[in-house]
Amino acid sequence: MSHNTFGHMFRFTTWGESHGPAIGAVVDGCPAGLPLTPEFIQSFLDKRKPGTSKYVTQRKEPDAVKILSGVFEDDRTGGPVTTGHPISLMIENTDQRSKDYSEIRDRYRPGHADMTYDAKYGVRDYRGGGRSSARETASRVAAGAVARRVLGDDIVIRAALIQIGEHMIDGENWDWDETRNNPFFCPDKKMAKVWADYLDGIRKSGNSVGAVLQVEAQGVPAGWGAPVYGKLDTDIAAGLMSVNAAKGVEIGAGFASAGFTGTDNADEMRMGEDGKPRFLSNHSGGILGGISNGDTIVAKFAIKPTSSILTPVRSVTKTGAEVDIMTKGRHDPCVGVRAAPVAEAMMACVLADHKLRARGQMG
Amino acid sequence: MSHNTFGHMFRFTTWGESHGPAIGAVVDGCPAGLPLTPEFIQSFLDKRKPGTSKYVTQRKEPDAVKILSGVFEDDRTGGPVTTGHPISLMIENTDQRSKDYSEIRDRYRPGHADMTYDAKYGVRDYRGGGRSSARETASRVAAGAVARRVLGDDIVIRAALIQIGEHMIDGENWDWDETRNNPFFCPDKKMAKVWADYLDGIRKSGNSVGAVLQVEAQGVPAGWGAPVYGKLDTDIAAGLMSVNAAKGVEIGAGFASAGFTGTDNADEMRMGEDGKPRFLSNHSGGILGGISNGDTIVAKFAIKPTSSILTPVRSVTKTGAEVDIMTKGRHDPCVGVRAAPVAEAMMACVLADHKLRARGQMG
Amino acid sequence: MSHNTFGHMFRFTTWGESHGPAIGAVVDGCPAGLPLTPEFIQSFLDKRKPGTSKYVTQRKEPDAVKILSGVFEDDRTGGPVTTGHPISLMIENTDQRSKDYSEIRDRYRPGHADMTYDAKYGVRDYRGGGRSSARETASRVAAGAVARRVLGDDIVIRAALIQIGEHMIDGENWDWDETRNNPFFCPDKKMAKVWADYLDGIRKSGNSVGAVLQVEAQGVPAGWGAPVYGKLDTDIAAGLMSVNAAKGVEIGAGFASAGFTGTDNADEMRMGEDGKPRFLSNHSGGILGGISNGDTIVAKFAIKPTSSILTPVRSVTKTGAEVDIMTKGRHDPCVGVRAAPVAEAMMACVLADHKLRARGQMG
Amino acid sequence: MSHNTFGHMFRFTTWGESHGPAIGAVVDGCPAGLPLTPEFIQSFLDKRKPGTSKYVTQRKEPDAVKILSGVFEDDRTGGPVTTGHPISLMIENTDQRSKDYSEIRDRYRPGHADMTYDAKYGVRDYRGGGRSSARETASRVAAGAVARRVLGDDIVIRAALIQIGEHMIDGENWDWDETRNNPFFCPDKKMAKVWADYLDGIRKSGNSVGAVLQVEAQGVPAGWGAPVYGKLDTDIAAGLMSVNAAKGVEIGAGFASAGFTGTDNADEMRMGEDGKPRFLSNHSGGILGGISNGDTIVAKFAIKPTSSILTPVRSVTKTGAEVDIMTKGRHDPCVGVRAAPVAEAMMACVLADHKLRARGQMG
Repeated sequence: MSHNTFGHMFRFTTWGESHGPAIGAVVDGCPAGLPLTPEFIQSFLDKRKPGTSKYVTQRKEPDAVKILSGVFEDDRTGGPVTTGHPISLMIENTDQRSKDYSEIRDRYRPGHADMTYDAKYGVRDYRGGGRSSARETASRVAAGAVARRVLGDDIVIRAALIQIGEHMIDGENWDWDETRNNPFFCPDKKMAKVWADYLDGIRKSGNSVGAVLQVEAQGVPAGWGAPVYGKLDTDIAAGLMSVNAAKGVEIGAGFASAGFTGTDNADEMRMGEDGKPRFLSNHSGGILGGISNGDTIVAKFAIKPTSSILTPVRSVTKTGAEVDIMTKGRHDPCVGVRAAPVAEAMMACVLADHKLRARGQMG
Repeated sequence: MSHNTFGHMFRFTTWGESHGPAIGAVVDGCPAGLPLTPEFIQSFLDKRKPGTSKYVTQRKEPDAVKILSGVFEDDRTGGPVTTGHPISLMIENTDQRSKDYSEIRDRYRPGHADMTYDAKYGVRDYRGGGRSSARETASRVAAGAVARRVLGDDIVIRAALIQIGEHMIDGENWDWDETRNNPFFCPDKKMAKVWADYLDGIRKSGNSVGAVLQVEAQGVPAGWGAPVYGKLDTDIAAGLMSVNAAKGVEIGAGFASAGFTGTDNADEMRMGEDGKPRFLSNHSGGILGGISNGDTIVAKFAIKPTSSILTPVRSVTKTGAEVDIMTKGRHDPCVGVRAAPVAEAMMACVLADHKLRARGQMG
Repeated sequence: MSHNTFGHMFRFTTWGESHGPAIGAVVDGCPAGLPLTPEFIQSFLDKRKPGTSKYVTQRKEPDAVKILSGVFEDDRTGGPVTTGHPISLMIENTDQRSKDYSEIRDRYRPGHADMTYDAKYGVRDYRGGGRSSARETASRVAAGAVARRVLGDDIVIRAALIQIGEHMIDGENWDWDETRNNPFFCPDKKMAKVWADYLDGIRKSGNSVGAVLQVEAQGVPAGWGAPVYGKLDTDIAAGLMSVNAAKGVEIGAGFASAGFTGTDNADEMRMGEDGKPRFLSNHSGGILGGISNGDTIVAKFAIKPTSSILTPVRSVTKTGAEVDIMTKGRHDPCVGVRAAPVAEAMMACVLADHKLRARGQMG
Repeated sequence: MSHNTFGHMFRFTTWGESHGPAIGAVVDGCPAGLPLTPEFIQSFLDKRKPGTSKYVTQRKEPDAVKILSGVFEDDRTGGPVTTGHPISLMIENTDQRSKDYSEIRDRYRPGHADMTYDAKYGVRDYRGGGRSSARETASRVAAGAVARRVLGDDIVIRAALIQIGEHMIDGENWDWDETRNNPFFCPDKKMAKVWADYLDGIRKSGNSVGAVLQVEAQGVPAGWGAPVYGKLDTDIAAGLMSVNAAKGVEIGAGFASAGFTGTDNADEMRMGEDGKPRFLSNHSGGILGGISNGDTIVAKFAIKPTSSILTPVRSVTKTGAEVDIMTKGRHDPCVGVRAAPVAEAMMACVLADHKLRARGQMG
């Protein structure tokens, strides 16, 4: 029901605006006894931090996270562990330039939530998009770090960009290690170079472009998820679609499966060496009937181009005047680039929630 | 939290298995005073009823709905209206043939939930897929009929198939009226003929094929929905992804928007004759920042091919034996065909929920 | 959020009106593999059935329960077990006399929900109280039977009446076995006789009287429940206060503890023979900080007198006329008598929910 | 589901431990456009602040609240108003003395959550009770201030102590104004003097004592609340029972109604001068069938004596040793005294939630 809470047993609530004093998340339902330090959370935040390359916003924010509650020294190890109580995480906003907002105060930037926030609320923090800013996703990344502790190290969650604009990677070149070698989380070494030039051009022209990301989870045991409205794929779809600028989500073969025949689409089964069923293909994306089948969970999602561009576009004001608007400022030419850590965080949170839910309802 | 409940203020809970005595839905949170008869609900159920053409399962079920609670005679009109209390809807199963299930009792049909249900629950009603059967969607359609009463006649919700297998409609030929003239809910008269032949071949060969559907809502005012995790698009994505066999969801331009530049993607605005902002294009699918903008809500979703096919495929049994399996029975060559009324129902339920939520939180 | 759903992981949704075709409950979240038959559920329903003695309503209803979903034959035993899917329970209403309701159709019976239902909904099923009838509690009792399967036989839940009108039992005489020997669930043999005469007089004079019940759960392990807003006592209070006619709830010493000093109130601890802490007294009612401490859970609740009485009282009509009203019909002289099985059911449902929640969040 | 969230449409989530860096609340679902300043919230916090008289803990905390999000300058007035987004409230802990906790680190203080937290979580912030400290209630009071903005000035919520130990007020002397003239929120001038002496004795002897509070809401219109499990009285009971040390809750006549006959208990009705039904008595506490009837909402609740006392009591340690324990420190001789602002806050939050829920579901 809450607009700002995600998850059920493992859940988090985020708060804060782009240019307010701070943003944060309260993570609730986390089991007790898991090691958790600010440094661990910070390592995930640093992956989405602004200002790390010329392909992302030049806003300079350390995005330093503080843990305000829910962690205490362990009796045995003396190190900080979760206590089972709410974990309050806070990131102070440090780069809120006092600037002139008169340009956007009353004008509705196309593609942004300006017009709809006004329609719903009648009042709006217009500074940097306020609550609708992608800055909120830092809170998700922080919560996702906690989720990884719930999942443990046997579950590996990774995201990669597979398309920027019209440039798609070649799946044959896929190498997860490459995603750490370029500023695009690109698993295809060759395509990373193409993107570098391409995005540079986009950036210089004051334009922007969309992207497609793939996020995977390896090591999820068969049996997580639920039927009907509590499906694992339903929750992944909701989690990814809630990310700013997301316009589409696919599980496994996704839209391509519409073109398949049943024979092509069947993920045949044999017995694995571990005595468990294994699948000879993974069109399903690791989920059958809403429940994990033990194979890798695979989801993709599409991110639209950054709406803030330097080209003037036609718009209207709050009071109904017709204007042209051009959005200056420090914008990502492709918001998809920084969405990879966010996608991983959402996947981690969905899985942590379902791990606890599965354990609760087990026979 | 509940695996079998959808929605928040306007919510429904479904129950029942394919071959049990009945299936049903309990609709809760519906406002009082709305006219509601079994006939009205039946008119929607008849659109997804099996046995209506040779392109769908030949299972013969009248799918007759009963209203067991939540409706009473209105003081003024004498006609039945909702009372604000839970509306219990029941559809008795009448075509549960007593047949031999030994074939599928212990074998995992690829693409079905057999293996994952066993992994999660350890016990499984294998008759016709039990709870995982698409028969559950009849309950959604019944709930969706109630949702339409909440929305009123000014909001028009319609679904169409736009792709079957590799055959896509031509958007230029779009005519909503045509969706009622062919058994495929196809808005392109020419393509309907192609599909007829194509599906006939698929059916005769014992194979199956996937589909893509588009569902739209016209007349939704600006301001429904919510930011962050309560986004209208998030809830639509969850609702459509929860439909059996769904593998992907798009809002507005969807995955295509990844290939756009910001300039291409901008939905520019001018003032409409009604004094409200209007959009010169609708790449956003009528939603900005999770909130409706007054334009038509547009979503698409992909349905994988029916997993039950006559071609033998490799699989395993509950006890780990490797077998070949072939699924006989009365199956839809393309389950997408009967998904159109289901898509409309899910869209109606999401919107009814958000209508009530928006009203509750208004200033 | 739902007005008609109780619980979180183990939850049930009830539906139905007193004089509609049926009432029922959908139980969701129940683990798979638990034996469940209609006969088992029926054994609980028979304890609250109307018409069993002259001290309760003479409405004649068999209250026969049907299981419509969520149960299937077990592979190993062949007996019916839960499948993990929603369990739909239905009780058909058979004694809906067609009678003249003109007396209460427009008049607000004091103490009833007539006036407030009209204020909220504007339309009302006035036949037998509609949704506000205590008949709804049969659905709770059915759900409570399922909850007992979740809890297993080691947890014993029992309720007793300890006060009717001004006549309180003597705690010294407490004998749980006696609760099965009289129609009042009275654990004090002597008081049962006093009540018999007393209630007979109340009944003959067309009046009614209130009651206090005590409900206990033995065998609950330490560690169920949660802090702050998910407290076990919070949920027990909510569960009991939701019972028709309930006006007060106590945990352990309840209101008496206000008169105690800290020294008197302290439940001192020593080590038990089983190596677990044991308590030398139980003022806490088995709950500390919202979490069970291993001692017996003890709650009490107060039921107001039946509002339907033969004495005329002053009231108003829907349209604002001032009238005198007297409620004829087949009413319980003390609704508290039939509340004992309902109290047990609510306690069972709260504990089943917390059992699953505790298991989900464990470290 | 969340253990740390209260409410549905208007909801708040609290976090923080007694001796951590801060505590706080995130309020979600608040409508936009309501004036809200830190000063307004502070005025409520100051009423429960420690150190205000010798009858409460001498811990010195300013309890200064910060608003970190969800408020922005209003277009029209320029003053701060709610934006409809989550309101993050933080109170820094300033009086966390570094002291020796070895006494309580491993010992279970009777009446406290020490033993049960360990049973559930296995790890525990023992400093000042950690999450189980009554300090958490400051977060509730802050959230309650926001709730009052939702309710507006026409709804007046007030709490009073009516019993401390065995000393009960005389209802004939009730004067709401008096509650501001003594440190006990006592509406009976004479009894306030008795309590002053009595509590002084209790305090000096290192003992403690319980209390009963009454909380009322005037001006609630008929029609708020819901039937069955969403009852207004159910939610009030849950809200008050969730307060630290609460052991019992009554609505209206409460347990006394068990001793009444139906004739005594009937709240008769006549038409009021405003054309609405009015009640000639208020045994119901303003709620019928779970829905407000327009009369004053009246609830009472019992608070047990502070568990921290100077008298040594028998207990055990984490590792099973039998010990005597005596709790030194700065404790309230009667925690009930500071519970009055908390009771008001919980009542305000329940009503704000139901105001929004009623508005959402209206026909």
